[in-house]
Amino acid sequence: MANKAVSYAGPGKVEVIDTPYPEFELKDGPGVNPDNVGRRVDHGVILKTVSTNICGSDQHMVRGRTTAPEGLVLGHEITGEVVEVGRDVEFIKQGDIVSVPFNIACGRCRNCKERQTGICLNVNPDRPGSAYGYVDMGGWVGGQAEYVLVPYADWNLLTFPDKDQAMEKILDLTMLSDIFPTGFHGAVTAGVGVGSTVYVAGAGPVGLAAATSAHLLGAAVVIVGDLNPDRLAQARSFGCETVDVSQGDPKDQIEQILGTPEVDCGVDAVGFEARGHGGEAATEHPATVLNSLMDITRAGGALGIPGLYVTGDPGASDPAAQEGSLSIRIGLGWAKSHSFATGQCPVMKYHRGLMQAILHDKVSIAKNVNATPISLDEAPKGYADFDEGAAKKFVLDPHGMITAA
Amino acid sequence: MANKAVSYAGPGKVEVIDTPYPEFELKDGPGVNPDNVGRRVDHGVILKTVSTNICGSDQHMVRGRTTAPEGLVLGHEITGEVVEVGRDVEFIKQGDIVSVPFNIACGRCRNCKERQTGICLNVNPDRPGSAYGYVDMGGWVGGQAEYVLVPYADWNLLTFPDKDQAMEKILDLTMLSDIFPTGFHGAVTAGVGVGSTVYVAGAGPVGLAAATSAHLLGAAVVIVGDLNPDRLAQARSFGCETVDVSQGDPKDQIEQILGTPEVDCGVDAVGFEARGHGGEAATEHPATVLNSLMDITRAGGALGIPGLYVTGDPGASDPAAQEGSLSIRIGLGWAKSHSFATGQCPVMKYHRGLMQAILHDKVSIAKNVNATPISLDEAPKGYADFDEGAAKKFVLDPHGMITAA
Amino acid sequence: MANKAVSYAGPGKVEVIDTPYPEFELKDGPGVNPDNVGRRVDHGVILKTVSTNICGSDQHMVRGRTTAPEGLVLGHEITGEVVEVGRDVEFIKQGDIVSVPFNIACGRCRNCKERQTGICLNVNPDRPGSAYGYVDMGGWVGGQAEYVLVPYADWNLLTFPDKDQAMEKILDLTMLSDIFPTGFHGAVTAGVGVGSTVYVAGAGPVGLAAATSAHLLGAAVVIVGDLNPDRLAQARSFGCETVDVSQGDPKDQIEQILGTPEVDCGVDAVGFEARGHGGEAATEHPATVLNSLMDITRAGGALGIPGLYVTGDPGASDPAAQEGSLSIRIGLGWAKSHSFATGQCPVMKYHRGLMQAILHDKVSIAKNVNATPISLDEAPKGYADFDEGAAKKFVLDPHGMITAA
Amino acid sequence: MANKAVSYAGPGKVEVIDTPYPEFELKDGPGVNPDNVGRRVDHGVILKTVSTNICGSDQHMVRGRTTAPEGLVLGHEITGEVVEVGRDVEFIKQGDIVSVPFNIACGRCRNCKERQTGICLNVNPDRPGSAYGYVDMGGWVGGQAEYVLVPYADWNLLTFPDKDQAMEKILDLTMLSDIFPTGFHGAVTAGVGVGSTVYVAGAGPVGLAAATSAHLLGAAVVIVGDLNPDRLAQARSFGCETVDVSQGDPKDQIEQILGTPEVDCGVDAVGFEARGHGGEAATEHPATVLNSLMDITRAGGALGIPGLYVTGDPGASDPAAQEGSLSIRIGLGWAKSHSFATGQCPVMKYHRGLMQAILHDKVSIAKNVNATPISLDEAPKGYADFDEGAAKKFVLDPHGMITAA
Repeated sequence: MANKAVSYAGPGKVEVIDTPYPEFELKDGPGVNPDNVGRRVDHGVILKTVSTNICGSDQHMVRGRTTAPEGLVLGHEITGEVVEVGRDVEFIKQGDIVSVPFNIACGRCRNCKERQTGICLNVNPDRPGSAYGYVDMGGWVGGQAEYVLVPYADWNLLTFPDKDQAMEKILDLTMLSDIFPTGFHGAVTAGVGVGSTVYVAGAGPVGLAAATSAHLLGAAVVIVGDLNPDRLAQARSFGCETVDVSQGDPKDQIEQILGTPEVDCGVDAVGFEARGHGGEAATEHPATVLNSLMDITRAGGALGIPGLYVTGDPGASDPAAQEGSLSIRIGLGWAKSHSFATGQCPVMKYHRGLMQAILHDKVSIAKNVNATPISLDEAPKGYADFDEGAAKKFVLDPHGMITAA
Repeated sequence: MANKAVSYAGPGKVEVIDTPYPEFELKDGPGVNPDNVGRRVDHGVILKTVSTNICGSDQHMVRGRTTAPEGLVLGHEITGEVVEVGRDVEFIKQGDIVSVPFNIACGRCRNCKERQTGICLNVNPDRPGSAYGYVDMGGWVGGQAEYVLVPYADWNLLTFPDKDQAMEKILDLTMLSDIFPTGFHGAVTAGVGVGSTVYVAGAGPVGLAAATSAHLLGAAVVIVGDLNPDRLAQARSFGCETVDVSQGDPKDQIEQILGTPEVDCGVDAVGFEARGHGGEAATEHPATVLNSLMDITRAGGALGIPGLYVTGDPGASDPAAQEGSLSIRIGLGWAKSHSFATGQCPVMKYHRGLMQAILHDKVSIAKNVNATPISLDEAPKGYADFDEGAAKKFVLDPHGMITAA
Repeated sequence: MANKAVSYAGPGKVEVIDTPYPEFELKDGPGVNPDNVGRRVDHGVILKTVSTNICGSDQHMVRGRTTAPEGLVLGHEITGEVVEVGRDVEFIKQGDIVSVPFNIACGRCRNCKERQTGICLNVNPDRPGSAYGYVDMGGWVGGQAEYVLVPYADWNLLTFPDKDQAMEKILDLTMLSDIFPTGFHGAVTAGVGVGSTVYVAGAGPVGLAAATSAHLLGAAVVIVGDLNPDRLAQARSFGCETVDVSQGDPKDQIEQILGTPEVDCGVDAVGFEARGHGGEAATEHPATVLNSLMDITRAGGALGIPGLYVTGDPGASDPAAQEGSLSIRIGLGWAKSHSFATGQCPVMKYHRGLMQAILHDKVSIAKNVNATPISLDEAPKGYADFDEGAAKKFVLDPHGMITAA
Repeated sequence: MANKAVSYAGPGKVEVIDTPYPEFELKDGPGVNPDNVGRRVDHGVILKTVSTNICGSDQHMVRGRTTAPEGLVLGHEITGEVVEVGRDVEFIKQGDIVSVPFNIACGRCRNCKERQTGICLNVNPDRPGSAYGYVDMGGWVGGQAEYVLVPYADWNLLTFPDKDQAMEKILDLTMLSDIFPTGFHGAVTAGVGVGSTVYVAGAGPVGLAAATSAHLLGAAVVIVGDLNPDRLAQARSFGCETVDVSQGDPKDQIEQILGTPEVDCGVDAVGFEARGHGGEAATEHPATVLNSLMDITRAGGALGIPGLYVTGDPGASDPAAQEGSLSIRIGLGWAKSHSFATGQCPVMKYHRGLMQAILHDKVSIAKNVNATPISLDEAPKGYADFDEGAAKKFVLDPHGMITAA
């Protein structure tokens, strides 16, 4: 059986290729850790992919900023219909429409038991934590494909209660696999609550999801900063204030909005590929966002950092940054008693509640991030447009099920 | 009335001088912020100092690493007997023996109401947070003196329930003004709980207090790292394991102790004046401790950072460090989903419970940090010995009350 | 100077009387605890009352269900303009428009320092906790008056940032003194978060405030139960589902709404004057609400109990209830691992954030509870209408400032 | 293969019988829910029982206070060696020595994912939550036997790191299956922290475990109340203060110990079979403990309630109690802003940390509860002695492995 999939084909390039239909075993292939080759996955299910989104963190690989091998099938934002059920699966049933957390977790290790599914100890021989279709994550095959294998299905999957309802709201629900929980985690770890003032650095999909989450959590004012006017317009479309960081220090613009130059909570939805502010906007300044957030977050505030920082960045401009070391104004943060929360969002902690918010019309995440469905064949163009800053979240529709719905 | 006090007399030098007896007003003097000059303190009390400790953070000033002016009266670790009560004080009474949190707080601002007394908004015109006898903290006169003024007495002070009992345990109780809560805060924010394995970087008094706190919180194994053999011996004296960082990477030594190279919780009790590990031990490497803690703390763990990092360090070897920017392996921390908690310990959050633990013989903080009383006149020698790495916590005894007790 | 005020005049009766203009001292009078007589209040301010609301807990006194003495000036929901400032007040200024938390707190005791301002140890000689104009609460004079004394002003008061804006939104902001935080506390302690399903027992003002809060906290579905059709209509007006408990067990109606007979979170906004469900609706069954909430809250859920339960209820029908003992199905709660949170809401914990939500148009509490301004002289009629179940929250307007705004 | 086991043989009677050796399927038998009959357990392991303790909650059944059927194999406190591994088990290995949490959990439902393993949704068709060898818990066969089946082994089991070390400390480690975590949960939910004063009602094994836990959590003073002088002596043996409730109201005795009649934290380690205080000590007063705890716990304190309250108690003296309704002074609790936490302890949340504390000699739980190994054949006598109030925790040793160690 055929299985068309999107794969990395060298710096700046993705292509749609034919790959094998999944079996209940992790087979050898590009990027598969040798210790994972041949691993039985009787606890898994095979999904017919209903929707699978292009993520900003895929772009790091596609831009050639990582050691991802050519031929790697991409995609860790997956929603699907269960078509085959492994021998050991007890509660997930064929026909279920399910959301797949991007972080693969075993449901049996210390970290999973402590709800830290982003750093599961049993799925990636290299280090804690894993994801589908991602470099150095153990080799689990990506889901930008017609079919995909999901391990530990009883543990990982979130089943939607009603299939018809799910298909009606699929463009919202597809955000549950990654960016909505990831943005929400950023807001939660930044301490956002009822009445907070919040600054979200970055108006890409994760930033917009963080801003959406801040509203959902009752924030009084949500300010989003970016360089990209279309993305800033997108943020304004759902009630955010905006800061154009190309115009200078966010602090001044925040003061104009709030009457004070500081916010209660800061979210870094940019990560290590940050650009400078004001006159430095044309070049990368990987610590700009963190340092700026310390400046504009009030004493006692917290910084939620869903934006990705990497342990190795061969494309960085200086040797320290190549090892993931950045020049951070820790003295400023310390003087302000800041706390900092980093790492992959443990999606399972949040996806059920966010699903309920979607199903009961409390939030319009698809509209807010401008979810835009395209076919699997259009994936290369989607990657290119996204890389150029389109204010869109591209959702691949491998079987035309979204268009049909 | 005379008031002998310890003051900063230029790099490397402290001296005992005569200063005015306090009044219920903040008078002009070395380091007093102009906006604080003449401030009425009718909410304050005047204490006869029972004990006042020399702190590692005083050393930063004495070493000339700050802009502290000559003549600054030092001392923010104060325990005293109330001798005069301001007009507006309602619940503190003359004769009470009280512990003074080193962070001065108003008890009336948003941050105080939220228990963040380390960043009170009303006591320091320069920025949130203050302390007695400290540079850039508003100019509240230090307590290494015979008498000292304490503002907002009803809010700030912890009264000991029984005077005789207090004097019996004075060497323990004197640690409540700073290092015991500070070490405890480091342990708490590092996530220490029953059964945790903990690494405390630094075996100075704060490190030893953090280690003591980790034991009190039920940690299974507490490992303390330092270069100084006397301080390491002190740590071993109360059941800690130790790592001699001059012998190389702590990771290997931790593995020998635990059978695994990582701990659950990391505490930085060193701060910006850190030295390197192994061969680099002779020179300052201000980010060494933070980077090392990310290496040896397990994925999902937290770093408590009571060690001081400053916004400006004129004596640092490179321009970035002079502004408080350090080269931090944030990519590693992010990959491990670490969280980081910084800032002054809000002493009031902890001092009452720790007092109870002392009074009911649950903990021997004085013994663990090797509390060593000396007279006020011996302060210069105490500073010098401490600077040379004496494994002692010096407690000044301005009125001979400790010796008498 | 005159000071018209609303006072209790025996069971079922309130009247508007002339009382003395406040001084910075607690004078003797109806219900004043002898130990509080003559207490100096130099830390207080005198407010010109801008708005002051009639509360359901006032009704307990007015119905003669307590030992409140005749002549007691009522009113603990107060918003005012500062007209006189006590000698020891430092940060509150004349002219400020401020919200007064109904729970009086000293800002200097252990409980205040731990944010438990509902059980301050220093304001009520009888027991922890106090309120204005309330029986057995120490005797602080009520605020349903033209002028009122507020002690510990720097600690207790929340200042609105802009006077004009405050007067524009006064009908919303007046709810910050009690019912909005109280309802919010009920929702928070019931564990309401993004995506929760919530049942609020009682559609009086506190119930409607709890429902409003649940929405603000991101609840997916908010269900309100009551007997009173007007109040249920009010709940539906802002997106709540409703259950008419006169029609039978709430469980069945919840199942019709949700497809499952249980909710995640239960809020008791009724308290000890509860009536039965279904056929028992005509008579009091003081434990009905608690027992029903255990039935309809899912295993692992929490019950927030802002509704008042009293230590003594002379008017209760059986001797146990007269002492505040009710027959509670604790076995059921235990089997479901429920937790229960009781007590006065510590308003200070929440009022600032809720103010921000109001000022930035995130919530319409006045509309949701049907805030209805009336003059001070109309207070007796307001009490009577409210007692008969009017779906309104009456806001007294002693100086016509609301009508003017 | 034979499998000797302890079974319930009617009120007041247990006997040792022969039962079938377990298979990877839940077979029909006494007390097995029809919906569970024939359930496949390929995710399970078969344990050779190393130790299995008699629990106070077994006594409820043995006393005939429940609907437990004759022939029910008892025992939910199990430590064992893995002798057979089900097909779907991935991480637990033959030969592992493991602790079995008494609450059976699937590791795949909403509650398990939220760490609420005491109310797993998938193991008991009757209601959330289950346990081995217990009435109305789905019918999972008890572990007071030579061999026992444990389902969802990868999820449920805690493996000890070293077999020899485990056997050396087996009398401590055997408490991890229930009473140590249960007592710890009681202390944690009562808010015990460093410096707390704590009252534990009940000096049976759970009470002693709660007291041990309170010490481990850093409590300043731990007071244990009971009627039984031997058990009180046992509490004193490890540093607790004691209250003899047969001598009158605990409040007075607490005042003598602390100088104040209230504690910070209250733990109910008795449950519904409570007896009265003072002159009422001879008869059952099921709400005595809860009402007394509200009296002696300070305002703002919390009550942890690990003691069992049941939904049906046919043997109770009045009809309300027979349905699990007790006359509770909720008005008092409300006035003091108490919170209440009930339900089965979710053992998995705590057992790993407590194991670490045991293995690193931080706690001596076996000594504190007076762990007393006996053979399986001595079980009937153990039950009888325990019922008569022996101050011992009986540990069955079905294979003589404890005696050998």
